[in-house]
Amino acid sequence: MTSSDKRRGGMESTRKVAIIGAGVSGLACIKACLEEGLEPVCFEQHDELGGVWYYTDEPRPNQGATIYKSLVSNRTKEMMSFSDFPQPKEAPPFLPYTQVHSYLREFADKFELMKFIQFGVQVQHIWRADDYATSGKWMVRTAPVATDNNKNTSPQTSLFDSVMVCSGHFSKPFVPKVPGLEEFTGVVQHSRDYNGAESFKGRKVMVVGGANSAGDVAAEVAQVASVVYLSVRDGTWLFPRLAGGGKPRDFCIQRARQNLPEWLKRILLRRQCNAFLDHENYGLEGCKDPIYGSTMINDEIAFRLATGKVVTRPVVERFTRTGAVFTDGSKIDQLDAVIFATGYNVAIPFLESDILPRDVGDLELYKMMFPARLPHSTLAVIGCVGTIGPIFPVLEIQSRWAARVFSGHCPLPDPQSMQEWLRSNREKCKSKIGRVSLMVCTLPYCEDIAQELGVRPSFWQLLPRDPYLAYLVYFGPAFPTHYRLVGPHRWAGAARHVKMAVSNTYSATRKSAQKPEDCLSAKVTIVKVMFTSLCVIALGIVIGISY
Amino acid sequence: MTSSDKRRGGMESTRKVAIIGAGVSGLACIKACLEEGLEPVCFEQHDELGGVWYYTDEPRPNQGATIYKSLVSNRTKEMMSFSDFPQPKEAPPFLPYTQVHSYLREFADKFELMKFIQFGVQVQHIWRADDYATSGKWMVRTAPVATDNNKNTSPQTSLFDSVMVCSGHFSKPFVPKVPGLEEFTGVVQHSRDYNGAESFKGRKVMVVGGANSAGDVAAEVAQVASVVYLSVRDGTWLFPRLAGGGKPRDFCIQRARQNLPEWLKRILLRRQCNAFLDHENYGLEGCKDPIYGSTMINDEIAFRLATGKVVTRPVVERFTRTGAVFTDGSKIDQLDAVIFATGYNVAIPFLESDILPRDVGDLELYKMMFPARLPHSTLAVIGCVGTIGPIFPVLEIQSRWAARVFSGHCPLPDPQSMQEWLRSNREKCKSKIGRVSLMVCTLPYCEDIAQELGVRPSFWQLLPRDPYLAYLVYFGPAFPTHYRLVGPHRWAGAARHVKMAVSNTYSATRKSAQKPEDCLSAKVTIVKVMFTSLCVIALGIVIGISY
Repeated sequence: MTSSDKRRGGMESTRKVAIIGAGVSGLACIKACLEEGLEPVCFEQHDELGGVWYYTDEPRPNQGATIYKSLVSNRTKEMMSFSDFPQPKEAPPFLPYTQVHSYLREFADKFELMKFIQFGVQVQHIWRADDYATSGKWMVRTAPVATDNNKNTSPQTSLFDSVMVCSGHFSKPFVPKVPGLEEFTGVVQHSRDYNGAESFKGRKVMVVGGANSAGDVAAEVAQVASVVYLSVRDGTWLFPRLAGGGKPRDFCIQRARQNLPEWLKRILLRRQCNAFLDHENYGLEGCKDPIYGSTMINDEIAFRLATGKVVTRPVVERFTRTGAVFTDGSKIDQLDAVIFATGYNVAIPFLESDILPRDVGDLELYKMMFPARLPHSTLAVIGCVGTIGPIFPVLEIQSRWAARVFSGHCPLPDPQSMQEWLRSNREKCKSKIGRVSLMVCTLPYCEDIAQELGVRPSFWQLLPRDPYLAYLVYFGPAFPTHYRLVGPHRWAGAARHVKMAVSNTYSATRKSAQKPEDCLSAKVTIVKVMFTSLCVIALGIVIGISY
Repeated sequence: MTSSDKRRGGMESTRKVAIIGAGVSGLACIKACLEEGLEPVCFEQHDELGGVWYYTDEPRPNQGATIYKSLVSNRTKEMMSFSDFPQPKEAPPFLPYTQVHSYLREFADKFELMKFIQFGVQVQHIWRADDYATSGKWMVRTAPVATDNNKNTSPQTSLFDSVMVCSGHFSKPFVPKVPGLEEFTGVVQHSRDYNGAESFKGRKVMVVGGANSAGDVAAEVAQVASVVYLSVRDGTWLFPRLAGGGKPRDFCIQRARQNLPEWLKRILLRRQCNAFLDHENYGLEGCKDPIYGSTMINDEIAFRLATGKVVTRPVVERFTRTGAVFTDGSKIDQLDAVIFATGYNVAIPFLESDILPRDVGDLELYKMMFPARLPHSTLAVIGCVGTIGPIFPVLEIQSRWAARVFSGHCPLPDPQSMQEWLRSNREKCKSKIGRVSLMVCTLPYCEDIAQELGVRPSFWQLLPRDPYLAYLVYFGPAFPTHYRLVGPHRWAGAARHVKMAVSNTYSATRKSAQKPEDCLSAKVTIVKVMFTSLCVIALGIVIGISY
């Protein structure tokens, strides 16, 4: 019996893992399970992989969040990559949804993940096995989804060693209870059911919400509507995808910035927001900081505001038969439609609420993944977070950690330590944003999980080996590939790709005659590396910043 | 006989001025004529004022340049204002074309200009009167345009003391001669005939051109097309309407910047361009400076480039039956349509070519307005320029100058001085952009004409009278209203409006509870004024900048 077998509790047969959903998280989980020698069985209720990135004109039965036809990822292609499978050169810096979906298919093909997915199979219920107290095993009841060709939907129950819930937590569209809404005679829609602006041509439309989907919908509808009112609660911070110098804003996610003091980060972020739109002059200012307030990633809404196509309004106090009254006393009348881009309620219906409570405040997930009340660490929820920063790297690192926990290579701490983490996280949340929330900042969160996994790259360890690589890892954008440089399941191509990632971002948009490699001028780089390394060393010595 | 009568050559009856066209220039000319005591007669071939801003779904017979339904002015409302008639508070910072048109109507109503316009009357020919050699008078032959109601199109000839040509010089769409174009089987269109993206849904489209209309068309078509190729000759400099801090880029047009050395202005402008889009990474870089290279004002194309919806290509070398081959050797095939956004040829058909030559290189216009070969200054061409900066203030100041020249208050210099100016201007043009061109920079050009008119505001003269006003005039955006502060036909409300203009820009977009006046914090302003005044004085003494 090897030492790792011991940690697994001495089991000799391959451990079976149920993976619910074949979206980004599901695919990452299948691959992570294979890397860890586990046996993944993935159940996907729809007929195709991709989850939210699998687009159909009508929302599918039981589908949670949806995308709209015009959707373009709000993160660069490099931040929408799995750590060891770069996006193709011919992809633009920001991907239309079709290209995200085809990338996921290519990923599944490359790593031969398809054979582990059972399409058209819905998970109905997951519960503790009879011997759960000792084994930690789970029972999973599944049933084929009825289709025109298949009327046999008789359920089947199987035993699994572990479960990875990758079905997404955004299940039920949330519509706030506004007085008078039932009286309002115009169209009322949730952004989940929004699919193109055509039906709003020449209409007076209101979009309620201050986050990404509100911005997307408002900007698109404004192209054809007579006017769009955007009702936001307490302002919103607008971030364009392209930041200073047209550089993707993603590229500001750097370890070097991460280590700046909180107050400086706030100032920088606030300046970054206002660099493109004076929030006050366009009626978007709120009282919260960009880190904790509502944010909207959008490149079109600023222009629509400046041309009066989108007009901001505060919260709706009440609806009338034909319009709305706002909290500042202003009114609009002859309103044709309201679109609520107000998000979703958390709901994972196939898990009992004693395993996963319905209320966000009661969700006791250790590091946003493991239900802390359970005595065994054999169930993980992937992607039950909102991220400040790209979510892709979060989903992948969560999947890798879960697989490594299930394989026994990364045991979780004792229940008391987990409770302690939960308590301190809850307090941090409350003090910063006033309530318990599922939000995490991508980079510090990933760094924390990467530390658990043993894949967190260290500037000082990389410096003697490859100073340029060390420079890029610390001062460059924190690409997912960084987590394949060291530790288990590293990727031989990682270092090379880290050096190529910025130029790969622009490979499709630069002039065809230019090679993307050109943009890394060797001389400039050497000077940069030397200078910055010296600065880092000096700074490190003088004020003792730890990283 | 008054001294001004002497300058007019002792004429006692009111001088009649023919104004051709009732667009922005035509309206400005009618008003300027009235201010100078001249008698304007304006001929407008269409049934409505507004010129290019009068939109109809189909181009009208004999119409020159057109706008498209989605057009939004690329200049702020304050820069799209006549100097003594501010835009309404409820207008957004950038105006959709409908609002520009309604503003023009309101302007005409306010100053009672409508009665001087003969609608539906086309000017067929303008020639020298029999006694031109002594009188400088002109014959104008006009004819009613045939309509369903009016079949009588018999021409009429009238004698005029002076003529203002306000018909626009962009008459004939220009399409470059590209080998193979006649073979190409797809749709070929000029941007003049472009009117919405609908017909390009799902198609592969190429837009040829690197200036504003190419950007507008490409960005709009890209929303529905499968892909849009943007073929640009030597790159183009992309300027968003919103510059640093979301401040309109117009607001950078300031007298203080004007007086910076040329090399510094170039550096600042290049940085300004690249602040929003790294031109190299998006395949738009050219070899020319932003001052003299092609520029494109656009807020949407950067995002479309970043998402691969618009793809840049170099010049088309030749067309094939189904595609195009570019100068870098790259090809595209299965191309469905080509839209040439390649501008217009200059053509003013009703004037003999000995008065106004057809070729830009032969157009000997003193200060871009007065045909310098004519012995009398009784004919002016308004708006026969391209502007780096807003054109509205140029059109108005030209109109005011022309009227003042015609009234005899501002005699032009002798023919030799005019020829000298032309020679030096031609040389300056050639050395800077390699050819004779109609381009002028708005602010220095307006300052020059304002100097002739006696309406150029001076920082030093304003400083003792109203330091804050002096500060705004020198360090603030150079709004048209500045030319109503001093000199003939000043406007009593000018100083007040100069102080309000920035906040008036945002009056429609700030939160309704806020008064726009709030944004002028008195304290900050006093400190600013004092500090900057001191700086200016010190600088003025030390390096002797003249303004």
